[in-house]
Amino acid sequence: MRTEIGEQPEALRATLDALLPRTEEIAALGAQTRQVLFIARGTSDNAAVYGQYLVQVAAGRLAALATPSVATTYRARMDLSGVLAVALSQSGRTEEIVETLGWAASCGARTLAVTNGAGSALTEAAELSLVTRAGEELAVPATKTYTTQLAALAVLALGLAGPDSALDAGALRAVPEEIARLVAADGPYAEIVEELAEVSGAVVSGRGMAFSTALELALKLKEACYLHAMGLSYADLLHGPIAVVDAQTPALVVAAESGPTLPGTVALARRVADAGARAYGIGGGPELAEACHLALPGPDLPEWLAPIGSIVPGQLLTEALARRRGIDPDAPRGLGKVTQTA
Amino acid sequence: MRTEIGEQPEALRATLDALLPRTEEIAALGAQTRQVLFIARGTSDNAAVYGQYLVQVAAGRLAALATPSVATTYRARMDLSGVLAVALSQSGRTEEIVETLGWAASCGARTLAVTNGAGSALTEAAELSLVTRAGEELAVPATKTYTTQLAALAVLALGLAGPDSALDAGALRAVPEEIARLVAADGPYAEIVEELAEVSGAVVSGRGMAFSTALELALKLKEACYLHAMGLSYADLLHGPIAVVDAQTPALVVAAESGPTLPGTVALARRVADAGARAYGIGGGPELAEACHLALPGPDLPEWLAPIGSIVPGQLLTEALARRRGIDPDAPRGLGKVTQTA
Repeated sequence: MRTEIGEQPEALRATLDALLPRTEEIAALGAQTRQVLFIARGTSDNAAVYGQYLVQVAAGRLAALATPSVATTYRARMDLSGVLAVALSQSGRTEEIVETLGWAASCGARTLAVTNGAGSALTEAAELSLVTRAGEELAVPATKTYTTQLAALAVLALGLAGPDSALDAGALRAVPEEIARLVAADGPYAEIVEELAEVSGAVVSGRGMAFSTALELALKLKEACYLHAMGLSYADLLHGPIAVVDAQTPALVVAAESGPTLPGTVALARRVADAGARAYGIGGGPELAEACHLALPGPDLPEWLAPIGSIVPGQLLTEALARRRGIDPDAPRGLGKVTQTA
Repeated sequence: MRTEIGEQPEALRATLDALLPRTEEIAALGAQTRQVLFIARGTSDNAAVYGQYLVQVAAGRLAALATPSVATTYRARMDLSGVLAVALSQSGRTEEIVETLGWAASCGARTLAVTNGAGSALTEAAELSLVTRAGEELAVPATKTYTTQLAALAVLALGLAGPDSALDAGALRAVPEEIARLVAADGPYAEIVEELAEVSGAVVSGRGMAFSTALELALKLKEACYLHAMGLSYADLLHGPIAVVDAQTPALVVAAESGPTLPGTVALARRVADAGARAYGIGGGPELAEACHLALPGPDLPEWLAPIGSIVPGQLLTEALARRRGIDPDAPRGLGKVTQTA
């Protein structure tokens, strides 16, 4: 897992080289649709949450997450004309996802795949495939296949938003270098790992564009550290689950260095600290760091691209914490690399 | 909370009496739209998940959950023509939800409110309001406002599906009596409470129609028992978080007595038990009970209505477990009755 975290800059560079020239194809498919429906599970579902916010905020289209069992278990029929169905699967071989994309097409949707599996069943099922170039991923917890998915979704947003949008492809090109800096950056990893070594549960929170990072970090902490990590948006957290935060239940709080969700995230970190819990920040600049007990530096990227970098300190933390808790992060119990759900 | 759990049959009867005559108004609004977008937070968001499955499976329309911050924080603009925006808020006074519904209307959506707040800001913002008749709810953890929301969503599905659908309004009319039976039914509550008394975290799982119940029970256990409860669909659980399940982390597994997700839920309970964890069932008939260490009886209702009843054993368990853990379930720390998020 540690090796693959370090391979992300190169994987991102190769992915962007392959996919950035394809924005016109995406635009053409987009012109025949008016909304996006993401189909995914697990880590890919967290990537889809990034896509959902980005497509809505930056490309001005309704975007939502599909419920695959409606297709595969209930076999519901509905009119999906005008819908661009975007299926995400790292392997491209998760049957539920392939089947749901086929269902969407049979209901009238146009189809696009985001996968690291060149020539997989998913690419065969989709009209257009954005194949990421993460290379082979051996560790069970996904790292480089996740960040390259996010990069592919940023390319999708560029294509859907069109050449006149405020999105800057040049900023996307700068992401791999910034990830390389983050992988090498210092931070109070050892202190946070020591504080989390014996903890049983934690809340992981972020809002808007950063919500995907909170969900993905919570998933990583569950699967590689066996931590009862609850990923919640800032708003959902205040609607009830804030009650679980206490001296034994710390919060990890994620934000970009700028953007409209930063002030609320800083306020949340203060509220967590007021409740007697430890607050750890990821990104969010000096403002968030000051509101937290300890903070890991985040990416110096515009808010729309920050999620590609914000997960990196979370990956490094997960890997180190797993080892501290006596778990091999490359092969946690109960998990295989390609998950099939029926 | 215990009193209000017992008031649910009467609240449901009053709600159905008020709302069942309104299916034609719903049908008229539905005829002018082709898909549903639910706008909600917290417990209401769990109700929306029920609505999302029900509208898709039973009424054959795409239904998805909105991301309110796209409206309130990012102020994105998009074309929502053809969309029926359905906002759920128990009080009808959560500003974020009222604002997001207004945003949806300004983007071209038609609007409908489901709320217990007659004359609230939300009913003023919506073209059509389904006002539940739960009466005043004093305990912070929502119970009767939640199940009456589900009943309103069942009425919504009846209206959208039309008179020729397979849905039977008579079955909905029988729900209050079945809830009364469940409130009074025996079950191994005391044994499960004793086993969960010192546990720090748990997984709560269900799939399809039952996913909403899993999410809502996890929320209740977080807010009233301070338990690190992770609500996950069967499929998402197998995509990573299954690693957290161990001798210290039990699973609560929910299913209807019948329906296509029952076999997978039974298989999940067996897998949890094989991992050395305790499995507790809610509903799912003798098949699920046999796969679990202990099981609470669920409702004898068709799958599409089962979620209105399946949460009741969960409410009773939450209330008893909170007291066992020394928490006043009516007033957990950190929470007020109307939550405002900015």
